Amino acid sequence: MNHPSRDLAAFAAQLRYDDIPTPVLRRAEDLLLDWAASALAGKGARPVETIARFAAQMGGPGTAQVLISRTHTTPLFAALVNGASSHYAEQDDVHNGSVFHPAAVVFPAALAVAQAQGNSGRELLCAAVAGYEVGIRVGEFLGRSHYRIFHTTGTAGTLAAAAAAGRLLGLDAGQMLHAFGSAGTQAAGLWEFLRDAADSKQLHTAKAAADGLTAAWLARDGFTGAQHILEGPQGMGAGMSRDADPARLTDRLGTRWALPETSFKYHASCRHTHPAADALLQVIQAHGLRPADIAHVEARVHQAALDVLGPVEHPRTVHQAKFSMGTVLGLIATCGVAGLTEFAERFDAAGIVAFRGKVRMVLDAEVDTAYPARWIGKVTVTTTDGRVLHGRVDEPKGDPGNTLSRAELRDKALRLAAFTQAATPAEVDALVERIWSIAQLDRIGDLL
Amino acid sequence: MNHPSRDLAAFAAQLRYDDIPTPVLRRAEDLLLDWAASALAGKGARPVETIARFAAQMGGPGTAQVLISRTHTTPLFAALVNGASSHYAEQDDVHNGSVFHPAAVVFPAALAVAQAQGNSGRELLCAAVAGYEVGIRVGEFLGRSHYRIFHTTGTAGTLAAAAAAGRLLGLDAGQMLHAFGSAGTQAAGLWEFLRDAADSKQLHTAKAAADGLTAAWLARDGFTGAQHILEGPQGMGAGMSRDADPARLTDRLGTRWALPETSFKYHASCRHTHPAADALLQVIQAHGLRPADIAHVEARVHQAALDVLGPVEHPRTVHQAKFSMGTVLGLIATCGVAGLTEFAERFDAAGIVAFRGKVRMVLDAEVDTAYPARWIGKVTVTTTDGRVLHGRVDEPKGDPGNTLSRAELRDKALRLAAFTQAATPAEVDALVERIWSIAQLDRIGDLL
Repeated sequence: MNHPSRDLAAFAAQLRYDDIPTPVLRRAEDLLLDWAASALAGKGARPVETIARFAAQMGGPGTAQVLISRTHTTPLFAALVNGASSHYAEQDDVHNGSVFHPAAVVFPAALAVAQAQGNSGRELLCAAVAGYEVGIRVGEFLGRSHYRIFHTTGTAGTLAAAAAAGRLLGLDAGQMLHAFGSAGTQAAGLWEFLRDAADSKQLHTAKAAADGLTAAWLARDGFTGAQHILEGPQGMGAGMSRDADPARLTDRLGTRWALPETSFKYHASCRHTHPAADALLQVIQAHGLRPADIAHVEARVHQAALDVLGPVEHPRTVHQAKFSMGTVLGLIATCGVAGLTEFAERFDAAGIVAFRGKVRMVLDAEVDTAYPARWIGKVTVTTTDGRVLHGRVDEPKGDPGNTLSRAELRDKALRLAAFTQAATPAEVDALVERIWSIAQLDRIGDLL
Repeated sequence: MNHPSRDLAAFAAQLRYDDIPTPVLRRAEDLLLDWAASALAGKGARPVETIARFAAQMGGPGTAQVLISRTHTTPLFAALVNGASSHYAEQDDVHNGSVFHPAAVVFPAALAVAQAQGNSGRELLCAAVAGYEVGIRVGEFLGRSHYRIFHTTGTAGTLAAAAAAGRLLGLDAGQMLHAFGSAGTQAAGLWEFLRDAADSKQLHTAKAAADGLTAAWLARDGFTGAQHILEGPQGMGAGMSRDADPARLTDRLGTRWALPETSFKYHASCRHTHPAADALLQVIQAHGLRPADIAHVEARVHQAALDVLGPVEHPRTVHQAKFSMGTVLGLIATCGVAGLTEFAERFDAAGIVAFRGKVRMVLDAEVDTAYPARWIGKVTVTTTDGRVLHGRVDEPKGDPGNTLSRAELRDKALRLAAFTQAATPAEVDALVERIWSIAQLDRIGDLL
């Protein structure tokens, strides 16, 4: 009997380190580093610290590490707080095809379980790969209609976290399927918060990591879940999507590796702004334009960009500004880069606000058709002296075909940690070395 | 501007004990007793004890009481475990119009916060009423299309728990609205588990109570949520319903009291089986029928009964049997009652299995049209000697117009506690007295 949920669960439960191609493992290390730096970049942020205080009041003592505070607690609360912090700066990775941020949910759950159990670096990497392969396929399964209303990182993320935690907990295929059932029936996260610049995004990643861990932990102890939580008639696809495609759940399992399809973020903003940002940068550099030279920018985008970014017309906070196409393009035009520092210091500067008024988004048929497999960036720039200039990138910076080098990743980690003073440059260097040799560690221990 | 979420949040935040009619308060006490007994009836159940072990491993020390173990922990984990246990025996209350089990999610959250803070009995009752009024209206708002796929007690229940916890935490109207936002974006629970007799129902009530408490706790500390999580274009109604009606959210707030519309459960089975069970009992008693006298029973039901009970054709567990119309009617025909003891001892007895084969459900237009406001029970019984007998009840036992007396509630509590040996008769008597005088308690303390 065709049963994609079971096939996917069996894959996650049975994945072995030696089955994973070396480049995938090396990329997993890079993603772990990029995640840890992103988690440090959430230090001090009000929503993150609020969740951390909640965890401190509700949790108990343990050996899992909260990165922003370097305190220790039970795995549930380490997953919760690390999940909350790792998506705050919007600098963590993204998988284009599923529009899903795997690191923010996979690594918090996996690291917490690995530290609690004393797992090896290889076991952590193998579990992380399981989490990525599952979560990405669940995101692809849920499809574009899901993403219009649900935050896929919260929903698919719960399954991803369950897979990663479940692999470390040694679940067999049957237990893993139960864990999927318990994860899927907890999966939640609505985009409605974005309209109000509310704090829910941190709650979504925190809860996906914690709830996925919960599902796996319960499954190891015999707790059962629905066998068809994804594709069943009262499952996630039926309730939360109109174009769910079960074939995506098992797409080339074991031969297609989805993890290295993941993109690193280069700009400190919502990924939907990146293609246009790169395309604008191309035009600006090619023609030596200053902000004052630009009369209008038309960002030609896919529908999901309109859905997610469209409601943000007048950003009132740094976080909301990261979802404002006009703000992002204004920073690119003014500073040449849209990093954490530029957002923090300039998102509401008069020049940026003025530039925002010059930007509009329009749906582009080619861009929309290619999405989500490819995120094409197209802009049409009209200059104040009447020229009409076209910019185009086929693969934005950080995408697999245009990825970051290890040197660039180290630099990014140093910048992220410095931004919140969560770690000194020497500590980041030690973290980098530790993660790039993690496959030799018999016991993970503290990352910091 | 019309803003039902805000109006509902303001109502919950500003509700005062003195504003609540006395009969509503007395009914709230009855519901609290009925809930506590239901929670005790979950003691020893594998899914419940699994969640309790998880809580013991992840949580910390506190003053909130876990009823099944009489241990103490932080409010999050008391809410989690009490939420898990209170819906296991299927003996807790139900609100017909919203198809929602309020007690299982409202009281675990409210009691945990009240015990942690040292609140009075009046404060607990006021918070419980707030939780009921909110959760029932959210369930009505989400509507029938929601319930076809989602377990409303898990979804609307998260808002109900947030309202109750938030009232005790002293949230103002703005904070309460933020709590609603954080609750709604965590709301989850799919019916898919029912097909497999999986353990998810305990997870749904546990998580609704715990997640609602989380939402309120975070809101008190400044964490923000979507302002229109219920009716917004990317909110719960948009994502999880096709017939959401925002007008239901504020239906006669402050004049219509939804809490006393709640029904006590009399049979130990899914509420969707009760109307037909009562109608069959009527026919059997009127005509002195024995099981062998009955050739066929046609249970004439509403569509939701077909949706929820239809997949359960061959129940393999006691829990699944509670969702089997054939099993329930078999117990009624054989034992005259379908209580916890009858299910535990006889659900798969040969006589019951044989009777199951005589029962079929059919959609009845009148019953379906009246639902969910009224749960009419209709059966057509064909006897082995060829008579065709009709049974009908307009209000099943336990409904507001056919409610349980305080003596019947005490007896039910004694039976539930005895079934799992969770409390002695003397302890139940003390519990009963404590709850019926709770409005005089300045500090709640332990229930047991």
